[in-house]
Amino acid sequence: MQAQVITIGDEILIGQIIDSNSAWIGEQLNLQGIKIKNILSISDDRDAIIHALETACKEVDLILITGGLGPTKDDITKFAIADFLQDTMVYDQPTFDRITLLFEKFGRKTTDAHKAQCFMPSKAKLLINKMGTAPGMLFEYDDTIIVSMPGVPYEMKYLMTKEVLPLLCAKGSQIHIKHKTIRTAGEGESRIAKQIEDIVEDFPDFLKIAYLPSLGTVRLRISGEHKNVELLESTIEQFREKLVHRLGDLVFGYDKDLLQDAILKLAILKSQKVATAESCTGGMIASRLTSVSGSSSYFKGSVIAYSNEVKHNLLKVKSETIENHGAVSENTVIEMVAGALKLLKVDVAVAVSGIAGPTGGTKDKPVGTIWIAVGNEKETKSYRLNLSKDRQKNIEYTTHAAMNMLRKFLMRL
Amino acid sequence: MQAQVITIGDEILIGQIIDSNSAWIGEQLNLQGIKIKNILSISDDRDAIIHALETACKEVDLILITGGLGPTKDDITKFAIADFLQDTMVYDQPTFDRITLLFEKFGRKTTDAHKAQCFMPSKAKLLINKMGTAPGMLFEYDDTIIVSMPGVPYEMKYLMTKEVLPLLCAKGSQIHIKHKTIRTAGEGESRIAKQIEDIVEDFPDFLKIAYLPSLGTVRLRISGEHKNVELLESTIEQFREKLVHRLGDLVFGYDKDLLQDAILKLAILKSQKVATAESCTGGMIASRLTSVSGSSSYFKGSVIAYSNEVKHNLLKVKSETIENHGAVSENTVIEMVAGALKLLKVDVAVAVSGIAGPTGGTKDKPVGTIWIAVGNEKETKSYRLNLSKDRQKNIEYTTHAAMNMLRKFLMRL
Repeated sequence: MQAQVITIGDEILIGQIIDSNSAWIGEQLNLQGIKIKNILSISDDRDAIIHALETACKEVDLILITGGLGPTKDDITKFAIADFLQDTMVYDQPTFDRITLLFEKFGRKTTDAHKAQCFMPSKAKLLINKMGTAPGMLFEYDDTIIVSMPGVPYEMKYLMTKEVLPLLCAKGSQIHIKHKTIRTAGEGESRIAKQIEDIVEDFPDFLKIAYLPSLGTVRLRISGEHKNVELLESTIEQFREKLVHRLGDLVFGYDKDLLQDAILKLAILKSQKVATAESCTGGMIASRLTSVSGSSSYFKGSVIAYSNEVKHNLLKVKSETIENHGAVSENTVIEMVAGALKLLKVDVAVAVSGIAGPTGGTKDKPVGTIWIAVGNEKETKSYRLNLSKDRQKNIEYTTHAAMNMLRKFLMRL
Repeated sequence: MQAQVITIGDEILIGQIIDSNSAWIGEQLNLQGIKIKNILSISDDRDAIIHALETACKEVDLILITGGLGPTKDDITKFAIADFLQDTMVYDQPTFDRITLLFEKFGRKTTDAHKAQCFMPSKAKLLINKMGTAPGMLFEYDDTIIVSMPGVPYEMKYLMTKEVLPLLCAKGSQIHIKHKTIRTAGEGESRIAKQIEDIVEDFPDFLKIAYLPSLGTVRLRISGEHKNVELLESTIEQFREKLVHRLGDLVFGYDKDLLQDAILKLAILKSQKVATAESCTGGMIASRLTSVSGSSSYFKGSVIAYSNEVKHNLLKVKSETIENHGAVSENTVIEMVAGALKLLKVDVAVAVSGIAGPTGGTKDKPVGTIWIAVGNEKETKSYRLNLSKDRQKNIEYTTHAAMNMLRKFLMRL
């Protein structure tokens, strides 16, 4: 079974929103062994929608459409699908009843726009959407299934999970597709490729590797397709083991694992309580660490010391240190670590101070100068980064680097 | 001029990464008055790339390709383009010299993979990429311009900004496209649409409105196309004014403005220093507030009190309060505000405490129960949210709601 995802909306084409729905849909279909041939984003324009449907119906067995089902005038998806299928619109009372009920729960009344929203193509099998007002729709056209869903991510995800995937699951597929992703931090794509070249050359024909770099990390995705699922899985596992052995502590996890997952596991394993003391990252390290369920078992808190006053009053960074070395200095971050260990009563603390930019640099310390320190009672390691002028990128990269330092520090305890 | 964006890479189709490049490219082209017909994501497969190029060349004047230019074996874009154009590959010494230089700066040596990377289609005009190893390429084929760029976002952005856009700018366009987006927080799409219905009905034919909802906010985008740019701009401005007047304090900004921008402006205008005391948001509020350049002028810092110990020791939340009412309670967040005002010596503080989930709920306080408070010396306002079981969504929405409360609090000072 091959599929196409079509996202509808000018807001995607003019870059006002980033299409994250397609990625999620792609991932879900892939897990079902359904191959996504392509993802297409088009304008909320009748002719564009009809043209896309005509083309897709010739190429794939399944079309998943998101967007353009809302109550407002720019929402034309269902009318365009009806035109494509030469269908007519009929009023659906149950949909209106559900909207009324949903609104009553919030103490609100429906508007005329909601009534107008209840006209549906007669050929649609309606998919109940408990997360919003617009139901999903499923059509069968020749050999192609067409599904239309709202563009609001949690509504689309609800419909996919509760309605669409169970339906598709039943249809199945003969070829098995499997992936395993190894996540690394601290080394670039080319150098990693070089380091594992001989192992990759031994890959059988049905396996391939992809290198997916992003800020500070490279993911290595091993992918395979085979009729024999046991053979496929054991071969992937065998090469995963070889690659991980070769790459050592560059590897911090698999598949969806993030640095915060690796840190959570390590902190629990080593019984370490952790805190952060952040200046230029403004809480992003703490926010990342606590994004994972279970983080309260090791993470106690942070001081975001955005002003020097807070660095001095709370974290006890000496005034002389700030005067003589500056707030962005090795001495300052080392004292921030010591202050956080004491104030927040933890075993390990990580501290950062830097000039995120785009302004605030000097000749000695240009924008992008960042100091990071990680330490405990016994020792503190510090590191200087020389980054760019891009504020957001500097904050992101510093957060990543500080977390990777924390991970390595915990590993060695 | 009409354009298509093609992103290449299985990682997009299987949802391993979200395609944010296309959104950025779409935005840039739109500002140049170039209409994006569609955005297509395909597999890193020779035939898929050639098929996409064949189709696109018939439909658009400009094709912008990202991805598949790296040094590894899954990077086949330039070979597929060469096949499509019936071109041959030639070795480019200047590219290799640039890679060598780049690596020397970091004290590293090139590998054979870098040498192999320097074979380029002979028909390509190479676009120098100072951010990475793979140059961009520009081809002219019949009446269509084909541009191929790396998929790494900052490399692509560098090439677009320095090379591609200046070239396209010269070619120009006769029809002007303009947008103005009004950003609102605190009310849903249907209700806003109802509230401004009569104003939207008065829109001239060349203007349209789109409602773009996301967690807690709705953006209203007024778009227009006209040959007369002055008329277009003044008409958009006239309707913008009417809409904003009607919507009152729901409006917090325009276009790219985020809540943190609105808060920065208000805090400076009202000379207020601000701090946060965060439990379940784990630093995300502070991180958002400090993501904006200039935030150090009003934001002094935070205490992330993830454990009750930190709530009590640093923020002076009474033990009785936590025992009698729980850490997630109105009393606790009100005391957290008072503690933060004193400890961090600020004028206004915002505090949150809640059960982000997915576990940790009780019958009285299910997962998703969140308390927020904002206050100063004189008064503190508090608010309870009843959210979902989804940890990430709860943290995001709480951050948004707390920031919107802070904005409204500052407005009324």
